[in-house]
Amino acid sequence: MTSSELHDTSIVIDGLIIAKWGRELFEDMRRGGLTAANCTVSVWEGFQNTVNNISEFHQFFEDHSDLIMQVRTTKDILRAKELNKTGIILGFQNAHAFEDKLGYIQVFKELGVGIVQMAYNTQNLIGTGCYESDRGLSDFGREVVAEMNRVGIMCDLSHVGAKTSMDVIEASTKPVCYSHCLPAGLKEHPRNKSDEDLKFIADRGGFIGVTMFTPFLKQGVDATVDDYIEAIDYIINIVGEDCVGIGTDFTQGHDKAFFDWLTHDKGYARSLTNFGKIVNPAGFRTIGEFPNLTDAMTRRGWSEHKIRKVMGENWLRTLKEVWGE
Amino acid sequence: MTSSELHDTSIVIDGLIIAKWGRELFEDMRRGGLTAANCTVSVWEGFQNTVNNISEFHQFFEDHSDLIMQVRTTKDILRAKELNKTGIILGFQNAHAFEDKLGYIQVFKELGVGIVQMAYNTQNLIGTGCYESDRGLSDFGREVVAEMNRVGIMCDLSHVGAKTSMDVIEASTKPVCYSHCLPAGLKEHPRNKSDEDLKFIADRGGFIGVTMFTPFLKQGVDATVDDYIEAIDYIINIVGEDCVGIGTDFTQGHDKAFFDWLTHDKGYARSLTNFGKIVNPAGFRTIGEFPNLTDAMTRRGWSEHKIRKVMGENWLRTLKEVWGE
Repeated sequence: MTSSELHDTSIVIDGLIIAKWGRELFEDMRRGGLTAANCTVSVWEGFQNTVNNISEFHQFFEDHSDLIMQVRTTKDILRAKELNKTGIILGFQNAHAFEDKLGYIQVFKELGVGIVQMAYNTQNLIGTGCYESDRGLSDFGREVVAEMNRVGIMCDLSHVGAKTSMDVIEASTKPVCYSHCLPAGLKEHPRNKSDEDLKFIADRGGFIGVTMFTPFLKQGVDATVDDYIEAIDYIINIVGEDCVGIGTDFTQGHDKAFFDWLTHDKGYARSLTNFGKIVNPAGFRTIGEFPNLTDAMTRRGWSEHKIRKVMGENWLRTLKEVWGE
Repeated sequence: MTSSELHDTSIVIDGLIIAKWGRELFEDMRRGGLTAANCTVSVWEGFQNTVNNISEFHQFFEDHSDLIMQVRTTKDILRAKELNKTGIILGFQNAHAFEDKLGYIQVFKELGVGIVQMAYNTQNLIGTGCYESDRGLSDFGREVVAEMNRVGIMCDLSHVGAKTSMDVIEASTKPVCYSHCLPAGLKEHPRNKSDEDLKFIADRGGFIGVTMFTPFLKQGVDATVDDYIEAIDYIINIVGEDCVGIGTDFTQGHDKAFFDWLTHDKGYARSLTNFGKIVNPAGFRTIGEFPNLTDAMTRRGWSEHKIRKVMGENWLRTLKEVWGE
């Protein structure tokens, strides 16, 4: 089997995309053979503006039904594969949109939200992000985790501080994830996870999606798709190959204003970080180049079985555990 | 078959209840043998406060799952009958909660909202209520009707002016309803519908739920359940027995502050009407007395077939046409 055939017959799941949504992007998802992706519809937005973003996706589902479809269950993801469409999992990178209402968690679940990050870089009502001193999970945050467990929304911890992350991992009765992270063992960075962090989540049934965001890779902007595979292997060496998947963090199509909004607390307050120029790894600059990932894994000598698992089957199994269907 | 057996084996649907929700009320629904009811969760509230009201019902569904369940389809209603629970159809008495966003219509449908009244007593972005000079359906209102048709939410016109009602009846491609009204032929009142209005909606596939709100009945506070049946028969004589059902408008458990809120534009502005003391017809003062309705119909000599249709089968068939399932 060629790597191209392997890619075409695999379930390919991207655990995090926060791109400029639109037909061009959805076409690129198809070009990349993406079966499903966790697409960010909330970062700094409150409740109602987040619903507005979801509403925008309803329109996308109507207008681009030849390319994409909403997926709420793993059965839906398999259906997307059959139909040659990309399944869109609505996700948040900040639980801020829950505001102070536990009831909104079920409301968002009913609207199809499947994955929510507990905090984005800074403190919210639930816990602390990875760019400030971590005060751990709040008592309200414990209720949020329990409600997310009850309704079936996955807790994501990628941009969450280490202490809050540990608290969530221990509080949750269902698998939680770092949907898009890199190992601090290859490069020290507030966003990267230590070997201990990675082992901690994996030992408790959690999941790790690996990002290829070059500011967090040791090779920086000179990184290639092979360096990305190296980073995935670094994590697999620590936690095994059954709880690891892809979580690219593609930001394709966004302009400077968007990154300014992302990198300031609450979208406008203090500056938290400055990435400089965003360049994705050579060979994996766009979502359409997803097949190069399978190719690079093959080149590195991964078995077909390992490739299929990391490309999507691991995500699929874990999402089913959380969503219950 | 006794009237009690007939009641127990009938599908009993109430097209409008706006009561003080809570366990006591839900117990009374069970006492009354109610299979399903359109329960108002929005009158003057905007988008987010309406979601908050729906959230409150999510908690009711958890806390009182022995008595009630949410119903989104007519299959769900039949399931509620089987389980001896009352199915709750979430409904609005004002489309104000859609705000200026057509996208919210699908959002509310996904949250299970099945029936929405286009306006409540006064002008909104869509059309005019029955307590002011009617300017007809707005162009935005036409888009709202089309979107409600598309997603499957029934248009209700009970508190809507005659001209806007006519416009909606003609614009809608699916059956619309007066969920709770009385005939002007028995008593002149801004809320009551003329014989022509009733014929107009029925001739175009629409539906009429009949209320027993005594301020609109010719007997006023002295009305009995038999006077209510007389009013239903008055309407059936005009439109036939296949498009008529129950829509009580029970307000059980509410205090003066609530009625003040209801009867002022936007909940606080100018006073629109003053009902005085609210007394339901003798024999039908509470939801728990619903079996007396079947009994009064039997007493009036209605056939079993006619009783079953008016008590719920007509609603069920029409809701299926609108909801598609």
